[in-house]
Amino acid sequence: MMEWIFACSPPLSAPVQKAARYRLHFCSPEIIRFQVSPDAIRLTLSTDDESVWHEVSRKVERVVSGVRDGFVPPEERLYMERRHPSPAWSGAGVNLEQAGLIKKAGEGFYVTGPLIAGLVERLDRILLDMADVFGARAVGTPALIAPEVLSRVDYFRAFPHSLTFACHLPRDVDEIEAFSKQPFEADGSLAPAASGAGAAVLSPAVCFHLYHFLEGTSLGQALESYTVRGRCFRYEAGALAGLERLWDFTMREIVFVGEQADVMDARKRSMEWVTDLADRLGLVCRIESAADPFFVGEFKQRTVFQAAFDLKYEWRADLDPAAADDLAVGSFNVHQTHFGKAFRIAAPSGEMAWTGCTAFGLERLALAVLRQHGLSPDGWPEILKSDLSVSIE
Amino acid sequence: MMEWIFACSPPLSAPVQKAARYRLHFCSPEIIRFQVSPDAIRLTLSTDDESVWHEVSRKVERVVSGVRDGFVPPEERLYMERRHPSPAWSGAGVNLEQAGLIKKAGEGFYVTGPLIAGLVERLDRILLDMADVFGARAVGTPALIAPEVLSRVDYFRAFPHSLTFACHLPRDVDEIEAFSKQPFEADGSLAPAASGAGAAVLSPAVCFHLYHFLEGTSLGQALESYTVRGRCFRYEAGALAGLERLWDFTMREIVFVGEQADVMDARKRSMEWVTDLADRLGLVCRIESAADPFFVGEFKQRTVFQAAFDLKYEWRADLDPAAADDLAVGSFNVHQTHFGKAFRIAAPSGEMAWTGCTAFGLERLALAVLRQHGLSPDGWPEILKSDLSVSIE
Repeated sequence: MMEWIFACSPPLSAPVQKAARYRLHFCSPEIIRFQVSPDAIRLTLSTDDESVWHEVSRKVERVVSGVRDGFVPPEERLYMERRHPSPAWSGAGVNLEQAGLIKKAGEGFYVTGPLIAGLVERLDRILLDMADVFGARAVGTPALIAPEVLSRVDYFRAFPHSLTFACHLPRDVDEIEAFSKQPFEADGSLAPAASGAGAAVLSPAVCFHLYHFLEGTSLGQALESYTVRGRCFRYEAGALAGLERLWDFTMREIVFVGEQADVMDARKRSMEWVTDLADRLGLVCRIESAADPFFVGEFKQRTVFQAAFDLKYEWRADLDPAAADDLAVGSFNVHQTHFGKAFRIAAPSGEMAWTGCTAFGLERLALAVLRQHGLSPDGWPEILKSDLSVSIE
Repeated sequence: MMEWIFACSPPLSAPVQKAARYRLHFCSPEIIRFQVSPDAIRLTLSTDDESVWHEVSRKVERVVSGVRDGFVPPEERLYMERRHPSPAWSGAGVNLEQAGLIKKAGEGFYVTGPLIAGLVERLDRILLDMADVFGARAVGTPALIAPEVLSRVDYFRAFPHSLTFACHLPRDVDEIEAFSKQPFEADGSLAPAASGAGAAVLSPAVCFHLYHFLEGTSLGQALESYTVRGRCFRYEAGALAGLERLWDFTMREIVFVGEQADVMDARKRSMEWVTDLADRLGLVCRIESAADPFFVGEFKQRTVFQAAFDLKYEWRADLDPAAADDLAVGSFNVHQTHFGKAFRIAAPSGEMAWTGCTAFGLERLALAVLRQHGLSPDGWPEILKSDLSVSIE
């Protein structure tokens, strides 16, 4: 192991540092640790071999230039901010795993015990009230998605780094029995038979399936609303961390499909509804403009595009009283005709349909409640104390 | 393409034919189609090459001998049977995809539209009533599971054929960008980078996570009950078919952990509860002894063991009025101390805990309702007409 320094000149602005920090997790397998400051990136590599460093520094340069050169960070727009005096912050310092509330089940995924699982269900029931306001109809989506569908929505180009593929053993009794007898390599990794060519992808969002479901249809109304709850998968390598950033998480979405004006209005109403919810939850939080985590090659153009057309806001909740750490617990998205075109969905006007979605990460929202209001339901806001049929404790 | 015949002498009994039929889907990639009769298995191969047939017939022999030689099929035990006169069977002949109720999203997975998604939610709420009867506490489980955990419960040995592995691209900016530019091979399959070594497995059941969560604990009560709803993954190759057999499906489980007598009693009570539910649903169905789909090498011994100790029952519903086709929509399982030992869970007596689970395939249960009672909620039993907050139509 050895530390190397990648000098940054001119210095990196704060938004560029942030963008580089996330993407350096996907830069090179030789990088064990890294630290980004304005002037330099310090990297710990697995080796002191100069030729390896030469290769790695080329890759670091690729990442840094991808998020820096010619990038003008868009101005942030604040939609709302809440600084409630109420939170006790009694959950702020607690290690949830040591407290027995969650159990690490693997790198990036956790089992949640009754307290958190019950809280997730309560929060979801509340979000269903919002779905009801829009007359949203439930649809059911698989966790798997066809590569062809993801390709149609340009996901491979925008977010290749976080894809998860579903593979299976070959349909061959010899190979299956051989794997069965020796599923692991000497180093503890799975035997190569486990990665026959990927046959499907694990869906990184639930709404893609809905657009696919609506493929080739003409909408009957200026606004149709749907709601879906499903598992989403985003492999985020070294950025994976506790319930904050899971490989495999639960998303509740309310999806809007229709005419431009109606979809824009629905998103706005969903932001108003969430603002009211934030007050009922007594959460220290804000709704502000945001960008999706586009990979290096697509970062600059798409980030600027999203901001220019006001396409994305995030609902971000503080995780500690010093406001040093906050977390996106929801987002409010408009996709213009991106999906309407890809799946030939027509609005009543005959124009391609606009789409939008308001999405919530349920484990993250639960985490924000726990951090701010503590681990005892007694200290939770009234709205979370309503009875659920399945006991939470 | 060419048809070949594998002669069976002595003839295959009905249970052996059934066992062979399922496992031949995992026999050889050269097999395009097959048909099993008592005297012969007819196989269509991709080739007329005799040497390929020689290899394939060796593999067929392996599968057939694995489920035949020395296998004495256990006697079937019927726990209950219901032949309600009520079903209209108006959904029996309907192609759900042509009716616009589901959309094929890939090989083995479907999006379900509002009618079926709403029915799934209603059924799940009803099953939560059963969870409540047992005072079950909700837990939340990821879709991913660590290979090490599955290995501990001997899953790789028993069911290697249906495993699904989660893979991701290498953490390398060059490889990620190369994949991003060309995600598909010329034949339309995903580029090989998509199958870096499998890092995790997609869980084939939800209860494994719970036992892992309870690892190393001593139970406070003679019976603890939990409930989980989650996605499960079983790759079943050519056996995949519509909502009947999904690669990726939704399971609701009520899990029992405790002393032997209490777990056995809880399973019995869950069978009584489901018998009552079957009446309220007016379903033509039965509960009978069953066996898990063990792969070839483990089939005989484990099937006989399960039957000898009365470990598994299935709730099977008819899919057509001629009773030619039925489907397991739920199961009632006891695992003795298999999981208690693997995860060192102690019952209050100091003995290793017994476990059991009563599990439901929600899409399958919905399908049985649709087949028997039709596609219009007007024709559904009263119990399914209760109001849900999210509209089903």
